[in-house]
Amino acid sequence: MIPKDHPRYDSLVLRARMVEASRKGILADSAMIAHGRGEAFDYLIGERTTEPAEKAVKAAAAALILAEHPVISVNGNTTALVLEDIVKLSEVLNAPIEINLFYRTPQRIERIEKMLNEAGAKKVLGTDHEEKALIKGLKGPRANASREGVYKADVVIVPLEDGDRAEALVANGKKVITVDLNPLSRTAKTSSITIVDNVVRAVPLLIEKVEELKNLDENELENVLNHFNNSRNLKETLKIVSKAYTGDVEL
Amino acid sequence: MIPKDHPRYDSLVLRARMVEASRKGILADSAMIAHGRGEAFDYLIGERTTEPAEKAVKAAAAALILAEHPVISVNGNTTALVLEDIVKLSEVLNAPIEINLFYRTPQRIERIEKMLNEAGAKKVLGTDHEEKALIKGLKGPRANASREGVYKADVVIVPLEDGDRAEALVANGKKVITVDLNPLSRTAKTSSITIVDNVVRAVPLLIEKVEELKNLDENELENVLNHFNNSRNLKETLKIVSKAYTGDVEL
Repeated sequence: MIPKDHPRYDSLVLRARMVEASRKGILADSAMIAHGRGEAFDYLIGERTTEPAEKAVKAAAAALILAEHPVISVNGNTTALVLEDIVKLSEVLNAPIEINLFYRTPQRIERIEKMLNEAGAKKVLGTDHEEKALIKGLKGPRANASREGVYKADVVIVPLEDGDRAEALVANGKKVITVDLNPLSRTAKTSSITIVDNVVRAVPLLIEKVEELKNLDENELENVLNHFNNSRNLKETLKIVSKAYTGDVEL
Repeated sequence: MIPKDHPRYDSLVLRARMVEASRKGILADSAMIAHGRGEAFDYLIGERTTEPAEKAVKAAAAALILAEHPVISVNGNTTALVLEDIVKLSEVLNAPIEINLFYRTPQRIERIEKMLNEAGAKKVLGTDHEEKALIKGLKGPRANASREGVYKADVVIVPLEDGDRAEALVANGKKVITVDLNPLSRTAKTSSITIVDNVVRAVPLLIEKVEELKNLDENELENVLNHFNNSRNLKETLKIVSKAYTGDVEL
């Protein structure tokens, strides 16, 4: 048990979730390393949801509500960190969850599928017992997507996605929403809407915003979306991170 | 095998070393996460040895040559990443290597000891078959140090050290040299000489500098040391990292 008054309590809880997920066999070898990168970048934005992140979440909520076929794409790390919230997001959006793994193995797919189902997920795609279609621009098993999921989707939310796949999804005409703590990553730069925040803060906030904006009409939602500019928003984030470094130093 | 023309080749080689070390059982649960944090911070300094890092390495070389009882303190990650170079550094300095683990287990100690011995280390301390002494200001098993190693040392080089221990070593009157990619960490701020660089670049460079400065007399070495100011040097590093964020954005 981690003592609640530990100065790094939140961070240690997430680490414990990752270690647990690793023991369950749902993570790739490099998953812990990716989590550590996230820790470092989270530290630089002050381990809080920044104003630009909140703007991105709002735009993401509008895009997902407006979508005809929204899909939530998850990998091992996302499942390890925000399983319950992903299931809840899928409920409020009435959107399927698709498992997409960078290092795909039948064992990992099966275990993640089981965890999602046990958490109450209504529709889990990307499993090994369904028809696949190929996403253009990707090679090997990573090109596979569920025919009724990511392949058909107009809007995909893919937290913690790699650069190649984010690029390919955008090139295939999809609106891509990502959650990525590194504002300089290829995924962050390529995606349509980039939420630079920890997935454990971003997903609950996204659920809130979806519930808040659900009552708006189509025009109002389009308005929210048109007011959002991803590259401008990323620049605002970069300013914040840069200040984390210069805050205690005179330049 | 990682293809040599992969744009992230160097980084992937290090990851492979970490995965290998994890399979050998020399790493703590959180070691991969720490490595990931390092990857993120390394990315922000451009994955190269910066000018301030080179200055710190030079000062470190002078301090280690001047030391009466220099000790090289290693943990699992350092062993995983730069085993051969650590052994070589210990040879050029004629200094013992001491194993100090944050999460100490007899298995990990034994395996790291074996790896160091197989790599040709002349004197390995911190093992479970020797007398220990307590470092004041630390609690539990982490307070243990080898009586003829860190406990007696005037200068300790401790790459990838945690903040508590770095502080305690300094409080116990030792000159502490660390290698830490996060210029804002407590270890970085507390240590006497902080090398903000990847340990795989810093240790070979340190060996070079030791061989280069070995011929200087005591006064000349003291001069090198007195010209070095750790907090000023850290500020120079912060400027570089801050520019990594602002480089492609107009503020």
